[in-house]
Amino acid sequence: MRVLGIDPGSQATGFGIIEGDEAGCRVLGFGTIKPSRRLPFHFKLDEIRGRLEEIISGYAPEEVAIESPFYAQNIKTALALGQVRGAVLVAVAARGCSLYEYSALEIKKAVTGYGRAEKHQVGAMVRALLKVEGKTVEPDASDALATAYCHLNTRLHRKKMEEAAAEGKI
Amino acid sequence: MRVLGIDPGSQATGFGIIEGDEAGCRVLGFGTIKPSRRLPFHFKLDEIRGRLEEIISGYAPEEVAIESPFYAQNIKTALALGQVRGAVLVAVAARGCSLYEYSALEIKKAVTGYGRAEKHQVGAMVRALLKVEGKTVEPDASDALATAYCHLNTRLHRKKMEEAAAEGKI
Repeated sequence: MRVLGIDPGSQATGFGIIEGDEAGCRVLGFGTIKPSRRLPFHFKLDEIRGRLEEIISGYAPEEVAIESPFYAQNIKTALALGQVRGAVLVAVAARGCSLYEYSALEIKKAVTGYGRAEKHQVGAMVRALLKVEGKTVEPDASDALATAYCHLNTRLHRKKMEEAAAEGKI
Repeated sequence: MRVLGIDPGSQATGFGIIEGDEAGCRVLGFGTIKPSRRLPFHFKLDEIRGRLEEIISGYAPEEVAIESPFYAQNIKTALALGQVRGAVLVAVAARGCSLYEYSALEIKKAVTGYGRAEKHQVGAMVRALLKVEGKTVEPDASDALATAYCHLNTRLHRKKMEEAAAEGKI
Protein backbone atom coordinates (compact mmCIF):
# COMPACT_ATOMS: atom_id res chain seq x y z
CA MET A 1 0.00 0.00 0.00
CA ARG A 2 1.03 3.58 -0.62
CA VAL A 3 1.00 6.19 2.16
CA LEU A 4 1.57 9.94 2.23
CA GLY A 5 2.87 11.35 5.50
CA ILE A 6 2.57 15.06 6.17
CA ASP A 7 4.27 17.17 8.83
CA PRO A 8 2.64 20.61 8.85
CA GLY A 9 4.62 23.47 10.34
CA SER A 10 4.28 27.23 10.43
CA GLN A 11 7.60 27.65 8.58
CA ALA A 12 7.67 24.56 6.38
CA THR A 13 5.45 21.56 5.68
CA GLY A 14 7.20 18.25 5.11
CA PHE A 15 5.81 15.42 3.02
CA GLY A 16 6.93 11.89 2.26
CA ILE A 17 5.43 9.08 0.21
CA ILE A 18 6.28 5.46 0.90
CA GLU A 19 5.03 2.18 -0.49
CA GLY A 20 5.34 -1.17 1.19
CA ASP A 21 4.10 -4.58 2.18
CA GLU A 22 5.30 -7.42 4.44
CA ALA A 23 8.43 -7.79 2.29
CA GLY A 24 9.61 -4.23 2.90
CA CYS A 25 9.04 -0.66 1.92
CA ARG A 26 10.55 2.00 -0.28
CA VAL A 27 10.44 5.77 -0.54
CA LEU A 28 8.74 7.19 -3.62
CA GLY A 29 9.33 10.82 -2.85
CA PHE A 30 9.76 13.41 -0.13
CA GLY A 31 10.30 17.11 0.27
CA THR A 32 9.41 20.31 2.01
CA ILE A 33 6.85 22.93 1.02
CA LYS A 34 7.99 26.45 1.87
CA PRO A 35 5.56 29.04 0.57
CA SER A 36 6.86 32.19 -1.12
CA ARG A 37 7.96 34.59 1.60
CA ARG A 38 6.47 37.73 0.12
CA LEU A 39 2.92 36.44 -0.24
CA PRO A 40 0.20 37.59 2.18
CA PHE A 41 -0.44 34.85 4.74
CA HIS A 42 -3.70 33.54 3.27
CA PHE A 43 -2.05 33.12 -0.14
CA LYS A 44 0.77 31.19 1.54
CA LEU A 45 -1.80 28.80 2.99
CA ASP A 46 -3.40 28.39 -0.41
CA GLU A 47 0.02 27.65 -1.92
CA ILE A 48 0.52 24.85 0.63
CA ARG A 49 -2.94 23.50 -0.22
CA GLY A 50 -2.28 23.66 -3.95
CA ARG A 51 1.15 21.97 -3.72
CA LEU A 52 -0.25 19.19 -1.55
CA GLU A 53 -3.14 18.59 -3.94
CA GLU A 54 -0.58 18.26 -6.76
CA ILE A 55 1.46 15.81 -4.70
CA ILE A 56 -1.63 13.72 -3.89
CA SER A 57 -2.66 13.71 -7.56
CA GLY A 58 0.84 12.80 -8.67
CA TYR A 59 1.60 9.98 -6.22
CA ALA A 60 -1.99 8.78 -5.66
CA PRO A 61 -1.48 7.57 -2.06
CA GLU A 62 -4.19 5.27 -0.75
CA GLU A 63 -4.10 6.86 2.69
CA VAL A 64 -2.69 9.94 4.39
CA ALA A 65 -1.11 10.14 7.85
CA ILE A 66 -0.41 13.20 9.96
CA GLU A 67 0.86 13.87 13.45
CA SER A 68 -1.76 14.77 16.09
CA PRO A 69 -1.35 18.41 17.03
CA PHE A 70 -0.88 18.14 20.76
CA TYR A 71 2.54 19.64 21.07
CA ALA A 72 2.03 23.37 20.54
CA GLN A 73 4.00 25.39 23.07
CA ASN A 74 1.66 28.33 23.44
CA ILE A 75 -1.51 29.88 22.06
CA LYS A 76 0.29 31.88 19.38
CA THR A 77 2.12 28.87 17.93
CA ALA A 78 -1.05 26.76 18.27
CA LEU A 79 -2.98 29.25 16.15
CA ALA A 80 -0.20 29.44 13.56
CA LEU A 81 0.15 25.66 13.37
CA GLY A 82 -3.63 25.23 13.35
CA GLN A 83 -3.98 27.46 10.31
CA VAL A 84 -1.35 25.55 8.31
CA ARG A 85 -2.97 22.30 9.45
CA GLY A 86 -6.34 23.60 8.22
CA ALA A 87 -4.89 24.22 4.75
CA VAL A 88 -3.30 20.75 4.76
CA LEU A 89 -6.52 19.00 5.83
CA VAL A 90 -8.50 20.84 3.15
CA ALA A 91 -6.08 19.49 0.50
CA VAL A 92 -6.43 15.92 1.82
CA ALA A 93 -10.23 16.20 1.88
CA ALA A 94 -10.40 17.86 -1.55
CA ARG A 95 -8.63 14.81 -2.96
CA GLY A 96 -11.03 12.48 -1.11
CA CYS A 97 -8.35 10.75 0.97
CA SER A 98 -8.82 9.14 4.37
CA LEU A 99 -6.74 10.73 7.09
CA TYR A 100 -5.10 8.98 10.05
CA GLU A 101 -3.56 10.73 13.04
CA TYR A 102 -0.73 9.54 15.25
CA SER A 103 0.77 11.08 18.35
CA ALA A 104 4.45 12.06 18.35
CA LEU A 105 4.98 9.21 20.82
CA GLU A 106 3.45 6.60 18.49
CA ILE A 107 5.51 7.86 15.55
CA LYS A 108 8.78 7.85 17.46
CA LYS A 109 8.02 4.40 18.84
CA ALA A 110 7.23 2.99 15.38
CA VAL A 111 10.51 4.28 13.99
CA THR A 112 12.96 3.86 16.88
CA GLY A 113 11.12 1.48 19.22
CA TYR A 114 11.22 4.20 21.86
CA GLY A 115 8.54 6.90 22.31
CA ARG A 116 10.88 9.48 23.83
CA ALA A 117 13.62 9.27 21.19
CA GLU A 118 15.47 12.46 20.27
CA LYS A 119 14.79 14.18 16.95
CA HIS A 120 18.20 13.23 15.50
CA GLN A 121 17.66 9.58 16.47
CA VAL A 122 14.33 9.55 14.63
CA GLY A 123 16.03 11.13 11.60
CA ALA A 124 18.85 8.54 11.60
CA MET A 125 16.38 5.65 11.89
CA VAL A 126 14.19 7.05 9.09
CA ARG A 127 17.24 7.23 6.81
CA ALA A 128 18.27 3.67 7.71
CA LEU A 129 14.79 2.08 7.59
CA LEU A 130 13.79 3.78 4.37
CA LYS A 131 17.24 3.52 2.75
CA VAL A 132 17.70 7.18 1.96
CA GLU A 133 21.12 7.44 3.65
CA GLY A 134 22.84 9.07 0.71
CA LYS A 135 20.28 11.81 0.31
CA THR A 136 19.68 15.05 2.13
CA VAL A 137 16.40 14.73 4.01
CA GLU A 138 15.30 17.95 5.66
CA PRO A 139 13.91 17.57 9.21
CA ASP A 140 10.28 18.26 8.18
CA ALA A 141 10.47 15.74 5.33
CA SER A 142 12.08 13.23 7.69
CA ASP A 143 9.23 13.68 10.20
CA ALA A 144 6.70 13.25 7.39
CA LEU A 145 8.40 10.01 6.29
CA ALA A 146 8.39 8.81 9.92
CA THR A 147 4.64 9.52 10.12
CA ALA A 148 4.00 7.62 6.87
CA TYR A 149 6.15 4.73 8.15
CA CYS A 150 4.19 4.66 11.42
CA HIS A 151 0.92 4.38 9.53
CA LEU A 152 2.17 1.73 7.10
CA ASN A 153 3.47 -0.29 10.06
CA THR A 154 0.14 -0.01 11.87
CA ARG A 155 -1.70 -1.12 8.75
CA LEU A 156 0.59 -4.11 8.09
CA HIS A 157 0.45 -5.13 11.75
CA ARG A 158 -3.35 -5.01 11.71
CA LYS A 159 -3.41 -7.06 8.52
CA LYS A 160 -1.22 -9.75 10.11
CA MET A 161 -3.47 -9.82 13.17
CA GLU A 162 -6.55 -10.23 10.99
CA GLU A 163 -4.91 -13.03 9.00
CA ALA A 164 -3.85 -14.81 12.18
CA ALA A 165 -7.38 -14.45 13.56
CA ALA A 166 -8.86 -15.80 10.32
CA GLU A 167 -6.55 -18.80 10.55
CA GLY A 168 -7.67 -19.39 14.14
CA LYS A 169 -4.16 -18.72 15.51
CA ILE A 170 -5.28 -16.00 17.93
CA MET B 1 -17.90 49.06 -2.02
CA ARG B 2 -18.88 45.52 -1.15
CA VAL B 3 -17.33 43.71 1.82
CA LEU B 4 -17.55 40.14 3.10
CA GLY B 5 -17.02 39.70 6.84
CA ILE B 6 -16.18 36.26 8.20
CA ASP B 7 -16.26 35.01 11.78
CA PRO B 8 -14.60 31.58 11.87
CA GLY B 9 -15.42 29.33 14.81
CA SER B 10 -14.84 25.70 15.66
CA GLN B 11 -18.61 25.04 15.81
CA ALA B 12 -19.93 27.48 13.22
CA THR B 13 -18.52 30.05 10.81
CA GLY B 14 -20.55 33.22 10.33
CA PHE B 15 -20.52 35.33 7.20
CA GLY B 16 -22.10 38.63 6.21
CA ILE B 17 -21.96 40.72 3.05
CA ILE B 18 -22.61 44.46 3.14
CA GLU B 19 -22.38 47.18 0.54
CA GLY B 20 -22.07 50.87 1.26
CA ASP B 21 -20.74 54.33 0.61
CA GLU B 22 -20.87 57.71 2.37
CA ALA B 23 -24.68 57.74 2.01
CA GLY B 24 -25.17 54.54 3.99
CA CYS B 25 -24.91 50.81 3.78
CA ARG B 26 -27.12 47.78 3.33
CA VAL B 27 -26.91 44.06 4.00
CA LEU B 28 -26.80 41.81 0.95
CA GLY B 29 -26.73 38.53 2.82
CA PHE B 30 -25.61 36.75 5.97
CA GLY B 31 -25.67 33.32 7.48
CA THR B 32 -23.82 30.60 9.33
CA ILE B 33 -21.90 27.65 7.91
CA LYS B 34 -22.25 24.55 10.06
CA PRO B 35 -20.59 21.55 8.45
CA SER B 36 -22.33 18.18 8.46
CA ARG B 37 -21.81 16.61 11.87
CA ARG B 38 -21.02 13.11 10.72
CA LEU B 39 -18.19 14.02 8.37
CA PRO B 40 -14.56 13.35 9.36
CA PHE B 41 -12.94 16.58 10.52
CA HIS B 42 -10.90 17.26 7.36
CA PHE B 43 -14.01 16.91 5.20
CA LYS B 44 -15.80 19.39 7.49
CA LEU B 45 -13.01 21.89 6.87
CA ASP B 46 -13.27 21.33 3.13
CA GLU B 47 -17.03 21.89 3.33
CA ILE B 48 -16.44 25.27 5.00
CA ARG B 49 -13.89 26.14 2.29
CA GLY B 50 -16.27 25.08 -0.48
CA ARG B 51 -19.27 26.99 0.93
CA LEU B 52 -17.17 30.14 1.38
CA GLU B 53 -15.85 29.92 -2.18
CA GLU B 54 -19.45 29.69 -3.39
CA ILE B 55 -20.42 32.72 -1.29
CA ILE B 56 -17.46 34.73 -2.62
CA SER B 57 -18.32 33.74 -6.20
CA GLY B 58 -21.99 34.57 -5.67
CA TYR B 59 -21.66 37.95 -3.97
CA ALA B 60 -18.32 39.03 -5.53
CA PRO B 61 -17.13 41.13 -2.56
CA GLU B 62 -14.28 43.51 -3.33
CA GLU B 63 -12.58 42.86 -0.02
CA VAL B 64 -12.79 40.41 2.87
CA ALA B 65 -12.48 41.20 6.58
CA ILE B 66 -11.88 38.81 9.46
CA GLU B 67 -11.28 39.14 13.18
CA SER B 68 -7.66 38.75 14.36
CA PRO B 69 -7.33 35.49 16.26
CA PHE B 70 -5.99 36.75 19.56
CA TYR B 71 -8.75 35.60 21.80
CA ALA B 72 -8.28 31.83 22.07
CA GLN B 73 -8.64 30.66 25.66
CA ASN B 74 -6.24 27.75 25.58
CA ILE B 75 -4.02 25.69 23.29
CA LYS B 76 -6.74 23.19 22.40
CA THR B 77 -9.24 25.86 21.32
CA ALA B 78 -6.45 27.78 19.56
CA LEU B 79 -5.61 24.70 17.46
CA ALA B 80 -9.27 24.05 16.66
CA LEU B 81 -9.92 27.68 15.73
CA GLY B 82 -6.65 27.84 13.79
CA GLN B 83 -7.66 24.90 11.62
CA VAL B 84 -11.04 26.42 10.73
CA ARG B 85 -9.29 29.72 10.09
CA GLY B 86 -6.85 27.94 7.76
CA ALA B 87 -9.75 26.56 5.70
CA VAL B 88 -11.37 30.01 5.61
CA LEU B 89 -8.15 31.76 4.51
CA VAL B 90 -7.60 29.19 1.77
CA ALA B 91 -11.07 29.98 0.38
CA VAL B 92 -10.37 33.73 0.41
CA ALA B 93 -7.00 33.22 -1.31
CA ALA B 94 -8.39 30.74 -3.84
CA ARG B 95 -10.84 33.45 -4.96
CA GLY B 96 -8.00 35.99 -5.14
CA CYS B 97 -9.44 38.37 -2.53
CA SER B 98 -7.51 40.75 -0.31
CA LEU B 99 -7.91 40.06 3.39
CA TYR B 100 -8.02 42.59 6.21
CA GLU B 101 -7.82 41.77 9.89
CA TYR B 102 -9.29 43.67 12.82
CA SER B 103 -9.03 43.05 16.54
CA ALA B 104 -12.19 42.35 18.55
CA LEU B 105 -11.64 45.76 20.16
CA GLU B 106 -11.57 47.60 16.81
CA ILE B 107 -14.72 45.79 15.65
CA LYS B 108 -16.66 46.50 18.83
CA LYS B 109 -15.53 50.12 18.75
CA ALA B 110 -16.61 50.56 15.11
CA VAL B 111 -20.07 49.18 15.86
CA THR B 112 -20.83 50.48 19.36
CA GLY B 113 -18.27 53.25 19.85
CA TYR B 114 -16.89 51.29 22.79
CA GLY B 115 -14.17 48.63 22.55
CA ARG B 116 -15.29 46.69 25.59
CA ALA B 117 -18.98 46.40 24.65
CA GLU B 118 -20.83 43.22 25.58
CA LYS B 119 -21.74 40.68 22.90
CA HIS B 120 -25.48 41.45 23.09
CA GLN B 121 -24.78 45.19 22.71
CA VAL B 122 -22.75 44.52 19.56
CA GLY B 123 -25.61 42.35 18.26
CA ALA B 124 -28.22 45.03 18.94
CA MET B 125 -26.12 47.72 17.26
CA VAL B 126 -25.46 45.52 14.22
CA ARG B 127 -29.21 44.99 13.81
CA ALA B 128 -29.90 48.71 14.17
CA LEU B 129 -27.02 49.97 11.99
CA LEU B 130 -27.59 47.46 9.24
CA LYS B 131 -31.39 47.53 9.49
CA VAL B 132 -31.97 43.83 9.98
CA GLU B 133 -34.11 44.24 13.14
CA GLY B 134 -36.94 42.05 11.91
CA LYS B 135 -34.72 39.12 11.01
CA THR B 136 -33.09 36.41 13.07
CA VAL B 137 -29.34 36.97 12.98
CA GLU B 138 -27.37 34.20 14.64
CA PRO B 139 -24.46 35.36 16.84
CA ASP B 140 -21.75 34.19 14.41
CA ALA B 141 -23.47 35.92 11.47
CA SER B 142 -23.88 39.06 13.59
CA ASP B 143 -20.16 39.05 14.44
CA ALA B 144 -19.34 38.59 10.75
CA LEU B 145 -21.57 41.56 9.83
CA ALA B 146 -19.88 43.62 12.56
CA THR B 147 -16.46 42.74 11.09
CA ALA B 148 -17.62 43.70 7.58
CA TYR B 149 -19.05 46.97 8.96
CA CYS B 150 -15.77 47.74 10.75
CA HIS B 151 -13.84 47.30 7.50
CA LEU B 152 -16.27 49.35 5.41
CA ASN B 153 -16.11 52.12 8.01
CA THR B 154 -12.31 52.09 8.00
CA ARG B 155 -12.28 52.26 4.20
CA LEU B 156 -14.79 55.14 4.00
CA HIS B 157 -12.96 57.02 6.74
CA ARG B 158 -9.65 56.65 4.91
CA LYS B 159 -11.26 57.82 1.68
CA LYS B 160 -12.59 60.98 3.39
CA MET B 161 -9.14 61.65 4.85
CA GLU B 162 -7.51 61.29 1.44
CA GLU B 163 -10.09 63.61 -0.15
CA ALA B 164 -9.58 66.19 2.58
CA ALA B 165 -5.81 65.94 2.13
CA ALA B 166 -6.17 66.33 -1.66
CA GLU B 167 -8.27 69.46 -1.10
CA GLY B 168 -5.61 70.82 1.22
CA LYS B 169 -7.94 70.79 4.24
CA ILE B 170 -5.64 68.67 6.42
